[in-house]
Amino acid sequence: MFAPDTYAARRAALADAVSGGLIVLLGNNAAPMNYAANHYPFRQDGSFRYYAGADAPGLALTIDADSGEATLYGREATIEDRVWDGERPSVADRASAADIPDSAPPDALGGVVAAARQAGRTIHVLPPYRAEHRIRLGNLLGVAPEAVEASDVLTDAVIAQRLVKTPQEVSEIEHAIAIADEMHRTAMWMAQPGRTEFEVAAAIESAATSRGSYLSFPAIVTTRGEVPHHRAGSHVLEAGELLLHDAGCVAPNSGYASDITRVSPVGGTFSERHRAIYDLVLKAQEACIAGCAPGVSFRDLHDLSSKTLAAGLVDLGLLKGDVDELVAEGAHTLFFHHGLGHPLGLDVHDLEGLGEDRVGYADEASRSTQFGTKFLRFARELRPGHVMTVEPGLYFNAVLIELWRSEGRYADAVDYDEAQQWVGFGGVRIEDDVLITDDGHRVLGPPIPKRPEDVEAAVQGGA
Amino acid sequence: MFAPDTYAARRAALADAVSGGLIVLLGNNAAPMNYAANHYPFRQDGSFRYYAGADAPGLALTIDADSGEATLYGREATIEDRVWDGERPSVADRASAADIPDSAPPDALGGVVAAARQAGRTIHVLPPYRAEHRIRLGNLLGVAPEAVEASDVLTDAVIAQRLVKTPQEVSEIEHAIAIADEMHRTAMWMAQPGRTEFEVAAAIESAATSRGSYLSFPAIVTTRGEVPHHRAGSHVLEAGELLLHDAGCVAPNSGYASDITRVSPVGGTFSERHRAIYDLVLKAQEACIAGCAPGVSFRDLHDLSSKTLAAGLVDLGLLKGDVDELVAEGAHTLFFHHGLGHPLGLDVHDLEGLGEDRVGYADEASRSTQFGTKFLRFARELRPGHVMTVEPGLYFNAVLIELWRSEGRYADAVDYDEAQQWVGFGGVRIEDDVLITDDGHRVLGPPIPKRPEDVEAAVQGGA
Repeated sequence: MFAPDTYAARRAALADAVSGGLIVLLGNNAAPMNYAANHYPFRQDGSFRYYAGADAPGLALTIDADSGEATLYGREATIEDRVWDGERPSVADRASAADIPDSAPPDALGGVVAAARQAGRTIHVLPPYRAEHRIRLGNLLGVAPEAVEASDVLTDAVIAQRLVKTPQEVSEIEHAIAIADEMHRTAMWMAQPGRTEFEVAAAIESAATSRGSYLSFPAIVTTRGEVPHHRAGSHVLEAGELLLHDAGCVAPNSGYASDITRVSPVGGTFSERHRAIYDLVLKAQEACIAGCAPGVSFRDLHDLSSKTLAAGLVDLGLLKGDVDELVAEGAHTLFFHHGLGHPLGLDVHDLEGLGEDRVGYADEASRSTQFGTKFLRFARELRPGHVMTVEPGLYFNAVLIELWRSEGRYADAVDYDEAQQWVGFGGVRIEDDVLITDDGHRVLGPPIPKRPEDVEAAVQGGA
Repeated sequence: MFAPDTYAARRAALADAVSGGLIVLLGNNAAPMNYAANHYPFRQDGSFRYYAGADAPGLALTIDADSGEATLYGREATIEDRVWDGERPSVADRASAADIPDSAPPDALGGVVAAARQAGRTIHVLPPYRAEHRIRLGNLLGVAPEAVEASDVLTDAVIAQRLVKTPQEVSEIEHAIAIADEMHRTAMWMAQPGRTEFEVAAAIESAATSRGSYLSFPAIVTTRGEVPHHRAGSHVLEAGELLLHDAGCVAPNSGYASDITRVSPVGGTFSERHRAIYDLVLKAQEACIAGCAPGVSFRDLHDLSSKTLAAGLVDLGLLKGDVDELVAEGAHTLFFHHGLGHPLGLDVHDLEGLGEDRVGYADEASRSTQFGTKFLRFARELRPGHVMTVEPGLYFNAVLIELWRSEGRYADAVDYDEAQQWVGFGGVRIEDDVLITDDGHRVLGPPIPKRPEDVEAAVQGGA
């Protein structure tokens, strides 16, 4: 947690922006796996943590947007809680830690909301993504769970505030990247023939949890890198394969996330074919990072990555024609079918729970309908304090190549015979986390091996 | 998964037991962490997996208890799913794998339930423990989420069937224990001064995940063993401390759970005080295991553990008086405040989602109101095919000792001055998984170091 006044200042700014009504923020509850008492590791809601600080289940916060008053709601530990789970702070102590003046038991929230409704005041809530919150908000607001409506003014105010990171937030993200550095070096070190994907994935996670951190999202560790969300399996690594590892973690005491991708040559040496693709992706990534600056549209950077990749694919004989036209038509999306990156913060896709379009497009940009490009999560102008991932990639996905070939899509633009030769290659994605500064950008965290020779050296160090 | 006819036979037996109406079983969905698309690792519902086999999110199963017909409901992969997540079986293929004759899209379930309701048929559902299921069942049954009522006849039939394990289920539990053996040997090996609890916890989890398994519940790895659910922290282990590790995992292809507890002396040698408590808990555990047999009430075994522990506590000068009276009054619960064990199967507290009293007491036994003993999760008569954990423990919990002393509870029975001398000791729990056989019992899985000299040797092996 940060100093108490950090949270007070955030809440005051939020109350100002919303100007009137009662803001209700629900913290997350313990989430049941296969029965009520067997919980997944607790994960706090990002917005709740941003304004209330506390990283514990079953809490709620109200902010009176007229008076500025705030109350933290929660249950005190029973003697059984204290015996079974150990001592924990009182609700009043948790409130003090975030400079919240009042605290109350959870049931009090119902009365506070009911009184505000009776007085004709607006109740502002964020869009729920957990079903128990949908039920609870429905009960508070007197509507069916499906009819709960988020407050646009609150949602936009939270987005505006959370998108711009302060130096202390950036420092926490860098802490999470420092642990991710260990995670990815571990993966490189373990990218040896005879190891399984499961073993590398376990070691990556352990590199985080052994430091009191945990994964910010389920890690992707696979030689099937052409399937962006492929999970680790029992596959035994073979020399000559590419192992893609996309993983991040959270800063232990604050929850800010990191998100890094690297690709390791199993056994320690990239082949010529590997290098052709790796170097191209790296070139696109470095060009986009170099372009990160205030006032630049992230959509334009996405287009820059598309054009850089398309030009290389033309050189490799996979695409044919004029690069600008290829990208305008979307032929390159056969090989690069996701967006350049996304905001990063307390959530790894920062603020995505508040609505991807609202966070990433607002009135500034409209979402592409093109396959691939439509998955771009953020198209707005960059501003100082934004933290973005920059993660272009190239993939040789048999399903997509076969489908588009059979449909005759981009028949003139794609050399499908050549593309077929690359099936089995896998995929390459290279991802770093970038802060937009007043006069440009800064790649956050320690340098994690990225130049091909550095990655090779890291892999060879584990042989 | 087992052979398809296993699932068909289970469904037929269930339909027989319920005798009439439509059974609706919802599989679990992907559970959101901090926004909808960032999921916790998927965990299937135990009963759904038992009858439908499939270990994938978003499925549902109906069993017509009159005709015996069954249908699996699920969504087919879109092209985007196939590109992003890889190929997956069709719903019809998933159905075939469990000998389910029909398959249908998810939306068809609403019509099937509506038709059955219109025909005046009973709709049988299990108690939901996830809020999204409460909303969905409410919509299917035409009631508010909070008003969803489980079918007692269905719940009891599922309990009766799942409580008794077949040899193939037992073999899967043993597979999970074999992995737990590696987990606990790893913990012993790592119980060295200078290591942190976080590091040992990470290594325990990695021992499971590197083998394609995952934890059956959040592992407990702590030198604060007197707090039964204490979590691992940044505490640096010191020679002379006791490290308690309570952890299990699931069999990779079937989901059956293991649950094992061991206690390691940091640095490799139990002190005399350690041995006094360790030997006593081991004596109680071995006596209870020896008593496991068909026809024996698990409540009586719990009482046996209580009396064995109480007798030892009298010898140690912590309790005073007649052992039977001490246990009848509950004085021993100051040091042993949980139940002897619980059923184990697809869930680590098997079937707990269906109602702890219904699973563990039914009409056979009534729940104690005594602190400690009331936490016994199972009091019924043991039958061949039951798999139970046997896990007595002794704890020196400062909160409880201070509270009861200040309240004057058990003032004649407890030597509080002596108890105070043990605060800081931590706690000892020893847990194995035991199958009830036709003529007695069998401790499942490979032998995991348990005799104090074997544990010491395992720890010393990591020094």
